[in-house]
Amino acid sequence: MHGADPLIRLALAEDLGPGDVTTDALVEPDAMGEAVIWAKQKMVLAGLDVTRRVFALVDPSVELEFYFADGDRIDASSKVKVATVKGPLRSLLYGERTALNFLQRLSGIATWVRHHVEQLPPGKTRLVDTRKTTPGWRVLEKLAVRLGGGANHRFGLFDGVLIKDNHITACGGVFEAIQKARANAHHLLKVEVEVANLEQVQDALDAQADIIMLDNMDLATMTKALEIIDGRALVEVSGNVTRGRLTELAEIGVDVVSMGALTHSAVAVDLSMKIVMAS
Amino acid sequence: MHGADPLIRLALAEDLGPGDVTTDALVEPDAMGEAVIWAKQKMVLAGLDVTRRVFALVDPSVELEFYFADGDRIDASSKVKVATVKGPLRSLLYGERTALNFLQRLSGIATWVRHHVEQLPPGKTRLVDTRKTTPGWRVLEKLAVRLGGGANHRFGLFDGVLIKDNHITACGGVFEAIQKARANAHHLLKVEVEVANLEQVQDALDAQADIIMLDNMDLATMTKALEIIDGRALVEVSGNVTRGRLTELAEIGVDVVSMGALTHSAVAVDLSMKIVMAS
Amino acid sequence: MHGADPLIRLALAEDLGPGDVTTDALVEPDAMGEAVIWAKQKMVLAGLDVTRRVFALVDPSVELEFYFADGDRIDASSKVKVATVKGPLRSLLYGERTALNFLQRLSGIATWVRHHVEQLPPGKTRLVDTRKTTPGWRVLEKLAVRLGGGANHRFGLFDGVLIKDNHITACGGVFEAIQKARANAHHLLKVEVEVANLEQVQDALDAQADIIMLDNMDLATMTKALEIIDGRALVEVSGNVTRGRLTELAEIGVDVVSMGALTHSAVAVDLSMKIVMAS
Amino acid sequence: MHGADPLIRLALAEDLGPGDVTTDALVEPDAMGEAVIWAKQKMVLAGLDVTRRVFALVDPSVELEFYFADGDRIDASSKVKVATVKGPLRSLLYGERTALNFLQRLSGIATWVRHHVEQLPPGKTRLVDTRKTTPGWRVLEKLAVRLGGGANHRFGLFDGVLIKDNHITACGGVFEAIQKARANAHHLLKVEVEVANLEQVQDALDAQADIIMLDNMDLATMTKALEIIDGRALVEVSGNVTRGRLTELAEIGVDVVSMGALTHSAVAVDLSMKIVMAS
Amino acid sequence: MHGADPLIRLALAEDLGPGDVTTDALVEPDAMGEAVIWAKQKMVLAGLDVTRRVFALVDPSVELEFYFADGDRIDASSKVKVATVKGPLRSLLYGERTALNFLQRLSGIATWVRHHVEQLPPGKTRLVDTRKTTPGWRVLEKLAVRLGGGANHRFGLFDGVLIKDNHITACGGVFEAIQKARANAHHLLKVEVEVANLEQVQDALDAQADIIMLDNMDLATMTKALEIIDGRALVEVSGNVTRGRLTELAEIGVDVVSMGALTHSAVAVDLSMKIVMAS
Amino acid sequence: MHGADPLIRLALAEDLGPGDVTTDALVEPDAMGEAVIWAKQKMVLAGLDVTRRVFALVDPSVELEFYFADGDRIDASSKVKVATVKGPLRSLLYGERTALNFLQRLSGIATWVRHHVEQLPPGKTRLVDTRKTTPGWRVLEKLAVRLGGGANHRFGLFDGVLIKDNHITACGGVFEAIQKARANAHHLLKVEVEVANLEQVQDALDAQADIIMLDNMDLATMTKALEIIDGRALVEVSGNVTRGRLTELAEIGVDVVSMGALTHSAVAVDLSMKIVMAS
Repeated sequence: MHGADPLIRLALAEDLGPGDVTTDALVEPDAMGEAVIWAKQKMVLAGLDVTRRVFALVDPSVELEFYFADGDRIDASSKVKVATVKGPLRSLLYGERTALNFLQRLSGIATWVRHHVEQLPPGKTRLVDTRKTTPGWRVLEKLAVRLGGGANHRFGLFDGVLIKDNHITACGGVFEAIQKARANAHHLLKVEVEVANLEQVQDALDAQADIIMLDNMDLATMTKALEIIDGRALVEVSGNVTRGRLTELAEIGVDVVSMGALTHSAVAVDLSMKIVMAS
Repeated sequence: MHGADPLIRLALAEDLGPGDVTTDALVEPDAMGEAVIWAKQKMVLAGLDVTRRVFALVDPSVELEFYFADGDRIDASSKVKVATVKGPLRSLLYGERTALNFLQRLSGIATWVRHHVEQLPPGKTRLVDTRKTTPGWRVLEKLAVRLGGGANHRFGLFDGVLIKDNHITACGGVFEAIQKARANAHHLLKVEVEVANLEQVQDALDAQADIIMLDNMDLATMTKALEIIDGRALVEVSGNVTRGRLTELAEIGVDVVSMGALTHSAVAVDLSMKIVMAS
Repeated sequence: MHGADPLIRLALAEDLGPGDVTTDALVEPDAMGEAVIWAKQKMVLAGLDVTRRVFALVDPSVELEFYFADGDRIDASSKVKVATVKGPLRSLLYGERTALNFLQRLSGIATWVRHHVEQLPPGKTRLVDTRKTTPGWRVLEKLAVRLGGGANHRFGLFDGVLIKDNHITACGGVFEAIQKARANAHHLLKVEVEVANLEQVQDALDAQADIIMLDNMDLATMTKALEIIDGRALVEVSGNVTRGRLTELAEIGVDVVSMGALTHSAVAVDLSMKIVMAS
Repeated sequence: MHGADPLIRLALAEDLGPGDVTTDALVEPDAMGEAVIWAKQKMVLAGLDVTRRVFALVDPSVELEFYFADGDRIDASSKVKVATVKGPLRSLLYGERTALNFLQRLSGIATWVRHHVEQLPPGKTRLVDTRKTTPGWRVLEKLAVRLGGGANHRFGLFDGVLIKDNHITACGGVFEAIQKARANAHHLLKVEVEVANLEQVQDALDAQADIIMLDNMDLATMTKALEIIDGRALVEVSGNVTRGRLTELAEIGVDVVSMGALTHSAVAVDLSMKIVMAS
Repeated sequence: MHGADPLIRLALAEDLGPGDVTTDALVEPDAMGEAVIWAKQKMVLAGLDVTRRVFALVDPSVELEFYFADGDRIDASSKVKVATVKGPLRSLLYGERTALNFLQRLSGIATWVRHHVEQLPPGKTRLVDTRKTTPGWRVLEKLAVRLGGGANHRFGLFDGVLIKDNHITACGGVFEAIQKARANAHHLLKVEVEVANLEQVQDALDAQADIIMLDNMDLATMTKALEIIDGRALVEVSGNVTRGRLTELAEIGVDVVSMGALTHSAVAVDLSMKIVMAS
Repeated sequence: MHGADPLIRLALAEDLGPGDVTTDALVEPDAMGEAVIWAKQKMVLAGLDVTRRVFALVDPSVELEFYFADGDRIDASSKVKVATVKGPLRSLLYGERTALNFLQRLSGIATWVRHHVEQLPPGKTRLVDTRKTTPGWRVLEKLAVRLGGGANHRFGLFDGVLIKDNHITACGGVFEAIQKARANAHHLLKVEVEVANLEQVQDALDAQADIIMLDNMDLATMTKALEIIDGRALVEVSGNVTRGRLTELAEIGVDVVSMGALTHSAVAVDLSMKIVMAS
């Protein structure tokens, strides 16, 4: 029982449907084969475990040997051997595209996160993801973020109180919202609140918010907010964060920077699988 | 029973888990609300139908009114109202992120495809997708490609014979593979073959391939291949196709151009949902 | 899509199987009926919503009218009408036992929790449940606990860091465990640690635990622990807590008392359903 | 494919959700461990097989060794070693609570049933369960009843004809109902009817009921009923049966006594799991 | 929730897959239509309810009007209108084949059963089905048998004790097997035993079997067996029963005749659906 | 993950339900056994793979040895040993009926198809199935058709364009329909059209249909149609095709003959399983 099984089964079903007409027409059922998965650009690997699981669900007799681990950086300028896949030739071809589609997207995210994390100077500032993940993929993408050197925000709506603008509109003001949240949520959850200006920062402090998220503020306002907060709450920055702004955010002492783009704007990296032996 | 239901259920489950602790703490169960979904950049819309379905699965009493249809272009420089969503306030907040995540990604693909299609001069050349889609999302992404003005390649391994390099390695040569495919596949499927050089083009013609895919060739070779083929088969071009090359590919008379990047390198466009009334 | 649907479907399937042989033999398919659900003892009601859903899954045309709301106390000495159920007579009989089984157990838990909560003097002390719930029933039982006047602990392993004796055995000591947890968990989660003696209380304070759980201590030791902690962390008491001890625990100033018995030792209350009209 | 798999998967999903944040923060992925499951009170064991399956679904590499079999009585006054569990330390901690929750409830039922069965003098009288089981748990609870020395009534609505008061209300009288049932049910099912008074007993005999259930009668009436029936039908007693009444029911010659309390009023027994080695 | 939903969903998924390429290419999404389902031979109708459900799962807005009820005989020599189906034209075409496949097979069974039942003289003898049904279809086929005028044997392995030759081989002899079965099965189940000769008939009587199945005997032996049994058990005949033998089996006084051929040798009857209006 | 798993699980669930009451009453849990599957008439075998999977889902420890392969012809006049099945005796009995039901139906189809294929003279004419398969069984039945020597038509609505009379009614005429289909379907699909007369044949040719299906025509008309088509399209014949007409259809040069009866009118062949050893 792998956590991604429902998604992998969906993926195999949509690609294989009632059968691979090309492979079944051309390859004998008892033919065996060996293939190599190649990385064709610089990347941080993520998704090796899912790749293994894809082939296991296609055919438990397929064997994979990986030459790297999840989180490893591949820096070579030419193509690099990531894995060898052995087993019934038909099974290799059935699983090829689905396995690569997972591996390319997850490694794409890890690579893209690493590209951003490198901008952060050493210190306390964490770069974290958001809930702007590909529907159905949250566990996988959040793991890829960690493999790329980032950290995770809450997983979903259930494992952290985050009072956003829509909640404040819905229930009155910042202060009331924080009080109500603390009274109702269980005692292992902190209360975070999104604020849009310095007055709300003060309200949040007055209500003893555990974490204050500065949403879409300019650098001067954020600096001022940090002075006001003065360590009495964790400070998260969100909204229109780009790679170019990460260094300055770290320098003014923000605890956490969250970026939706880590997942919603990552693109696939280039990997391919080639049959090297068929018999 | 919507085709994307399994994926939508997976997505709602991963976001909502056992419940939205913030909303449940702050919003009364009987509060009603109204929200607006805003487009915040130029885009081609895709996924309105899925958006509707997300809210229907959260709470069938939520009502959506759309001001655009799937495939519509939004060109405004400022933010544009895409939809109004009315219903129990809790339900609006439960569905918000999942609905937007679908809408942002699918509209992102449609927008990105349109951006490419605009490079094609009027004429016969079709720009099509590949099987390099996000696992679990194939039906949705293939629809988004059409909404962006592209066309679809086969859906999966089951609805088209496409003999690729790995198949040729596995079963001998181009000629043999085509013969075998035609003998084994059912009579409503054409036979397409991927070729890497002009000798293989000739083999494919000799075996009466219905479609010949020129893989990773330079312009001169492709021009030569088109002369050799001379209308006896449909011609598809694939591999390292970029937006900048689309015009010249159309001009030399290629029938079909396929690009994995249409789906694997599209990023989300910017949409948001804001509560405008709560009672 | 109701959160308890998978469990309700399982329950209906196990009771109905391929069909109700008695009802199908005796009742015409088009016979209509009306039934009353009676409470036959004092109780706090919980599970009305699930009861409604059971009948909805059996037959959407069944209508229920409730004379009470979840959380209401029924104090009458004789039997009290809780609901009227109208619809196809066969459907009423198909759903009867499954609906009552849910209602009896959930109301049993709410009643049992209320019985305990009444021991707590007014003040800050919360009585909370644990993860010792009936497998498959967690959402339902946690709601019944709230309806009975209790509060919830974390929902599962994913929405709260709770370092227990087995974790401390596994990773060294209390101090190290807390440090490691804070570094690895996301920033919206507090860190709670279970301690068995006063040295561990001190370690927990030194590592700045957010919540300290005093496990299985006698009253004198707990009083001492509360003095040492002195408001620097929330204090939870767990282990061998009985109804008779709740008052004294509240009096010494414990913030949270958790009791597995709230769910694992609750028994069903008595409710029944009787057909009052058949036509 | 274990019969309880759907329930176990539900249970693991509700406890683990997207992951155990504490264990993942504190325990290395490659750490191995060994744990002991202890019984901490007198009990009849039930659920060992489910315990094994819980860990198998968490991680097939976990190994369990049991020192007892299902149905065994544990009589020791101090704690007793029930099982050793070995495997990846994370997997042991992931499965701990779910496995114990099953084992505690099922052993609780077996123990509670044994406590009742002991009241029956040797002879023909069977103590059986009812359909008042925990929704979703019927197969498991019915097995626990047998392990405790009880017997089972029909499993659900599909494997036995039992004409209850609601059916009699719905279809006329006892005699008509029995005739109709025999004509419609398949020939491998007996016909049982619930009667409330001696006239109905006579009707049931006239219609040749196979089994007559005396519902909520006092001892004198039951004795009279047994005289009237005189071996022409099996006799079952139901309604307000308590442990204290079992002996007299057996003595007057009742064939079957059914008690809902065997399942709906059983509580968990005390078992725990402790890590004894981590490396 | 219809009992056949899992099978219907499987059927729709296998026929529709990712979409009906012909219909989607030719019919506008907003086109409405009306179709007629025609019976093209004599038949007993079965499966109207499933037909309705197929279209409901395709599109809840499709409306069906039936001119007959399940179990009705259609005797006309020319084609007869069975139903009108109205709704979105695409939906009619999506559901057509699946709906007809169900209707044709189920009506085929009902027709075939009626053809056999007509051979039975009036009297007590029941013609019943077996467990030799199409895997996945048992509920549906057993209903079709009843609609054709037959009766059902037990539904599956769980709702009737039937001791067959393999069981006798496995556990000793007929007598022991019956004793053991009665001791272990719940008290609402009768015990049936399959016997191959007259000695086994005597053993079965000695052990007080409720039903004795005469397997594969010639008429003389069966007549002798009936004399021996003399009303002390129900008598079922099974094995190599053909339509031509039904009358004589009834005449010698057999209670139940079971025929696997009722389901495993029925073939589809001819029905079709034609669009009569498109707009 | 076997393609037929959902159907097999459905089948096992419907037969086993909460348990095999006979076997559990009579056979000890640790008894081992061996059984033989016998073929009792001439047949072409199909479904051995599913048989293996049925037992694997019942109990992975059951071992099967087959003495034939799928597609093998069994010609013996007396009974022939097809397989030996070894394992826990209970598991053999649990899986017996479900396994045989699959094997009997699938071998029945293969046998029936072979009986038809033998009528075709050597040459190009293919005998193919249709979509008139048993709902839920399409993959299995289409494989059985191939094992019997037939070929497959498209699998479902998604892998081939087939314009039928209902489509022509819905969208105008034959010519328009073909044009529209070619413009909208992806480029790997051929376009087939069903025609009812010679004018439609000409329209189909004019629109360059890839395949023309002659529906329900007499031999003279078909011969004329073949002359008109003259190799410019593949020719399929459908409608009221019987075994007796196959030879003449091949002789006039039809490419493909499709028969719904290959699947909808096949009946089960006779196979049984007998325990040969129990211990």
